[in-house]
Amino acid sequence: MPLVVQKYGGTSVKDTERIKAVAARVVATANEGNDVIVVVSAMAGETDKFVKFANEISDAPDEREMDLLLSSGERVTSALMAMAVQSLGHKSMSLTGRQVGIMTDSSHTKAMIEHIEGGRLKDAIKDGKISIVAGFQGINEFNDVTTLGRGGSDTTAVAIAAALKADLCEIYTDVDGVYTADPRIVPDARKMDRISYEEMLEMASTGAKVLHGRAVEFAAKYNVPLVVRSSYNMEPGTLVTKEDGEMEKIVVTGVTHDKNQSRITIIGVPDRPGIAAKIFNAIAAANINVDVIVQNISVHDQSTDMSFTVSRNDSRKAMEIAEKISVELGVSGVNMNPDVAKVSIVGVGMHSHFGVAAKMFEALSVAGVNIMMISTSEIKVSCIIEAELTEKAVQVLHDTFKLASQD
Amino acid sequence: MPLVVQKYGGTSVKDTERIKAVAARVVATANEGNDVIVVVSAMAGETDKFVKFANEISDAPDEREMDLLLSSGERVTSALMAMAVQSLGHKSMSLTGRQVGIMTDSSHTKAMIEHIEGGRLKDAIKDGKISIVAGFQGINEFNDVTTLGRGGSDTTAVAIAAALKADLCEIYTDVDGVYTADPRIVPDARKMDRISYEEMLEMASTGAKVLHGRAVEFAAKYNVPLVVRSSYNMEPGTLVTKEDGEMEKIVVTGVTHDKNQSRITIIGVPDRPGIAAKIFNAIAAANINVDVIVQNISVHDQSTDMSFTVSRNDSRKAMEIAEKISVELGVSGVNMNPDVAKVSIVGVGMHSHFGVAAKMFEALSVAGVNIMMISTSEIKVSCIIEAELTEKAVQVLHDTFKLASQD
Repeated sequence: MPLVVQKYGGTSVKDTERIKAVAARVVATANEGNDVIVVVSAMAGETDKFVKFANEISDAPDEREMDLLLSSGERVTSALMAMAVQSLGHKSMSLTGRQVGIMTDSSHTKAMIEHIEGGRLKDAIKDGKISIVAGFQGINEFNDVTTLGRGGSDTTAVAIAAALKADLCEIYTDVDGVYTADPRIVPDARKMDRISYEEMLEMASTGAKVLHGRAVEFAAKYNVPLVVRSSYNMEPGTLVTKEDGEMEKIVVTGVTHDKNQSRITIIGVPDRPGIAAKIFNAIAAANINVDVIVQNISVHDQSTDMSFTVSRNDSRKAMEIAEKISVELGVSGVNMNPDVAKVSIVGVGMHSHFGVAAKMFEALSVAGVNIMMISTSEIKVSCIIEAELTEKAVQVLHDTFKLASQD
Repeated sequence: MPLVVQKYGGTSVKDTERIKAVAARVVATANEGNDVIVVVSAMAGETDKFVKFANEISDAPDEREMDLLLSSGERVTSALMAMAVQSLGHKSMSLTGRQVGIMTDSSHTKAMIEHIEGGRLKDAIKDGKISIVAGFQGINEFNDVTTLGRGGSDTTAVAIAAALKADLCEIYTDVDGVYTADPRIVPDARKMDRISYEEMLEMASTGAKVLHGRAVEFAAKYNVPLVVRSSYNMEPGTLVTKEDGEMEKIVVTGVTHDKNQSRITIIGVPDRPGIAAKIFNAIAAANINVDVIVQNISVHDQSTDMSFTVSRNDSRKAMEIAEKISVELGVSGVNMNPDVAKVSIVGVGMHSHFGVAAKMFEALSVAGVNIMMISTSEIKVSCIIEAELTEKAVQVLHDTFKLASQD
């Protein structure tokens, strides 16, 4: 029998009415002749409530405690969903991350999955039971609860699909699929029918919130067919799959943005080997992800400036580290712009077309958007700009690359 | 160093302000030279919210799922409390029921503690850490979460105090201690300075909500000194301890009531051995506690009537079982009064004084309160009455036994 893993996000399970509606959909999937495993998020708003509580109590809440706190919301949903499926006459049981055997490292609040035991999931399938897994969580070697970071329930679903060699992994959310840009900013943004893992990964890592980047990476690595679709209707959604010839023809697939960034610049970095490593090792040791990094070669003297971006939540901590290291290294100074944004264009066709980046810079310039930093990969170009110009930049780029009409 | 176990109930940790206030109290206790273990309940209202969700989803929610659901509230509080203690500069860590090693049987929603491993609690004490234990929960042999029933956090605290041979177990709540009657009903009810385990047990089992009966049993069995006091002030509270000579002189210590009862009567039960066992075994198998049981000997014919009470939540299930068994046994019929109450007088001096019960019946009769059923023990007399007459009965009994002035 085919095995389908379905993941339902917070807005899809935001109240008991929605939980019952989702349960009906889950049971329908089983009745169509599938084995079904469900992964659930916390009810919408619960995780934010917990974060608010923690911030009321402490300026810097301990991350081990944050994980126990944050993991509670998914447990609640999994118990309620199991009850809802049972009340429709189908066998079901909740399983926590621990009970599924989701073993992670010990990077609390940002843990990485190391392996999945999955014995109870397999037993449940044999018993004809629909397992309802509390997403977003695992346990470490010390038997403590860990969480996988925001959006981690996507990762739970894909990792389980990979571990159990599922035939399909469906990510249910409150939008109809993956769009060429955020429809709240670009009214004529278009839903895509399919997108490659690589493009989806770049879109996720540059700000498309519909899917968690790590989940896409997992899916690509284990070749798990992924569908992003709405739990509010029966539309087919967007299939995330391997790149094919058809896709190559499209130069730019989508425009993404991320307003939750801060820029830190270290001024007058001595131009000798090992300096960058020193700075970024210290930041990595604090479990902070650095996104865009730009350093120019020194032309005039023996020093240069180095800029990088981090997510705004990490900016204070990153700034502290940068200041500390800077004193050790004897640089001229450190400054921060806490409110910057990254706008990006993504497309697998880009690597075989010239001039895409130039066209992007030209369009932003005409629109009066100043570019602070640039970062490129084979299939994306990102620009760091002032946060308040984000909407303007995204709309201009969507128009420039004619994404509304392209298909 | 003396070891103190402190338990804080839901109203004591109802918001982050209260959690911070409690943390300050916990740290003060440690700074006075004690090792401290804290047990916390869910924030007030959380458990009720979960029960409401479950009832919106299912008429008869699965009890395994209820346990996962209900155990979440205590986890949230334990994480927040650990953060609050840490932010006052003291080492602290949360521990779930599982992490403490609270092993229970598999009676979901009403599990009994079988033993406590406690290794992590001992390690924490060695490390100078204040452990914050999520109350009310354990795990069974299948590695599933169980809960200990309402008020189970009291039991967690006393069981931990017993297992670790604590010097004191303090139960913090929103009232100043144990009263001679519910002060909301009897304005001149008096707070007691001390009470024996036996009396406290009878008071708890007959409706005093300030302490969970099972917790008192545990405390008595392992001789754990127990104090009930308010987390809102520094009043000394009520000490629950072994009976001493002084206490014996007091005939009636307190009046309690329980309005959450239903009476079921089985009419025309055949007068032969084994009938009662059949009925109550079936009810026990459904994990329902029967409280008062009354059966008269048959005088006129070969059958009799048998009445018993159960808590109102269990009444529908108990009635179904009673009806099913009745058909098998060929009895005349079954009826139920869903809204009855139990009023009780409790006192260790009672067993050496005559006429206490008679004085109670007389007082109720004068007040126009009809007695449906009577149940007695060495140190208490309980009467089942119409629920709507509860307040009147409690006040009359408090006056009759002069509890306001007695000391």
